[in-house]
Amino acid sequence: MTYCVGVKLEKGLVFMSDTLTNAGVDNLSHHKKMFNWEVPGDRVIVLLTSGNLATTQGVVNKINECIRHKNTDTNILKTNSMFRTAGIVGVFLRDAIKTNENKLQQLSNNPYSATLIFGGQIKGEKPKMFLIYPEGNFIEASRDEPFLQIGETKYGKPILVRALEYQMNFQQVVKLLLVSFDSTLRTNLSVGLPIDYCDFESNKLEIRKQLRIEKNNQYFAMLSDSWGESLKKAVAGLPNFEFKK
Amino acid sequence: MTYCVGVKLEKGLVFMSDTLTNAGVDNLSHHKKMFNWEVPGDRVIVLLTSGNLATTQGVVNKINECIRHKNTDTNILKTNSMFRTAGIVGVFLRDAIKTNENKLQQLSNNPYSATLIFGGQIKGEKPKMFLIYPEGNFIEASRDEPFLQIGETKYGKPILVRALEYQMNFQQVVKLLLVSFDSTLRTNLSVGLPIDYCDFESNKLEIRKQLRIEKNNQYFAMLSDSWGESLKKAVAGLPNFEFKK
Repeated sequence: MTYCVGVKLEKGLVFMSDTLTNAGVDNLSHHKKMFNWEVPGDRVIVLLTSGNLATTQGVVNKINECIRHKNTDTNILKTNSMFRTAGIVGVFLRDAIKTNENKLQQLSNNPYSATLIFGGQIKGEKPKMFLIYPEGNFIEASRDEPFLQIGETKYGKPILVRALEYQMNFQQVVKLLLVSFDSTLRTNLSVGLPIDYCDFESNKLEIRKQLRIEKNNQYFAMLSDSWGESLKKAVAGLPNFEFKK
Repeated sequence: MTYCVGVKLEKGLVFMSDTLTNAGVDNLSHHKKMFNWEVPGDRVIVLLTSGNLATTQGVVNKINECIRHKNTDTNILKTNSMFRTAGIVGVFLRDAIKTNENKLQQLSNNPYSATLIFGGQIKGEKPKMFLIYPEGNFIEASRDEPFLQIGETKYGKPILVRALEYQMNFQQVVKLLLVSFDSTLRTNLSVGLPIDYCDFESNKLEIRKQLRIEKNNQYFAMLSDSWGESLKKAVAGLPNFEFKK
């Protein structure tokens, strides 16, 4: 399983993903689920992947092949809009799934399925972020709905619904996303550290920060402990329910 | 969809369920998912249901028929252990599902499937609480794992994992469960108010409190608002992540 989140802020875009992949609990390994492409001053693009690893690696390889071959139609470094670029990646995704299973109607249920978060900015446009479905179509994050999740999304969603704000800065959002990841890690064995992170500022057209939070990261360990205590205190601080006599 | 939780405390057992049922978002109705049977001084039994409504109502009717007909073999008011009683209800559940679909191997995936939380105390025993699967088998809650959930369980789980304690009193647990329900209600349209609640104290062998939290309940509205604020404050109170220069 996987947990990935992308957030659209006033200040830019933020991406976080875990790295654990599994085929059963006895077959665990670590694979990157975050990929990015940069042409400084022209565009910055980030991809998060969830689902069948052969499918998602196929999509990434296809993107890179089209960049290397300078094929202008499907080269994501030569497009002039993120909408068009997401369309190209959507077709790559659908094709990668179809290669293995030929029933288009059931793409989201088939074992080769995958889902992507795809965000970036191309010069002349505002930053955009999409969730690309196995069928190749996609939806866009907005100020009203500023985050997108893929993979094991439910455990970590309530805290994002409650606490995420479009005006937050990068430091605040990293913290909040790590709390959301911690809620997921605590309850689902198949989502695991290390966690990958990257962000970029609007109109800077380059990655601002990119880092990996490893298993021994002291900040994450502190956050995980403190958050447990904070939650207990928060519950204790609410007025108790009073039973009528 | 449904959300039900049962908690085993040092002081007794606690049960909470929503009441919304749906066959598609355009076909909503309210049905009780909490049932109880009492023989004061001898036993108290509570059932929470999730899944196909025809199946779960079938199980409840079967239980009541066997009580009315004084059939001692399958009368849950005549058994001498909760283990035996859960076994009877498990068979009722499996049979109700099988009536509609005849592939025993796939009971949990079939559209007539259902899952139950079944708890109570019979004189001479300690209180016991089970999660009964569609196949009719069941697992028991323990001090190490003091809560059981059925239905849409994921959104409301992290707060229980973090904050629930075996030694809590009933007031504290109602509050915590309502926070867990609020997290679920906020993110899943198909789980809804009113919420049913009941509890009983160990060895009292009768229901202590039973109540319904309606849509206009002021305590729940206050809790929902305050919890959002508390979460934001709890996140804000944690040290920010510092990016290395």
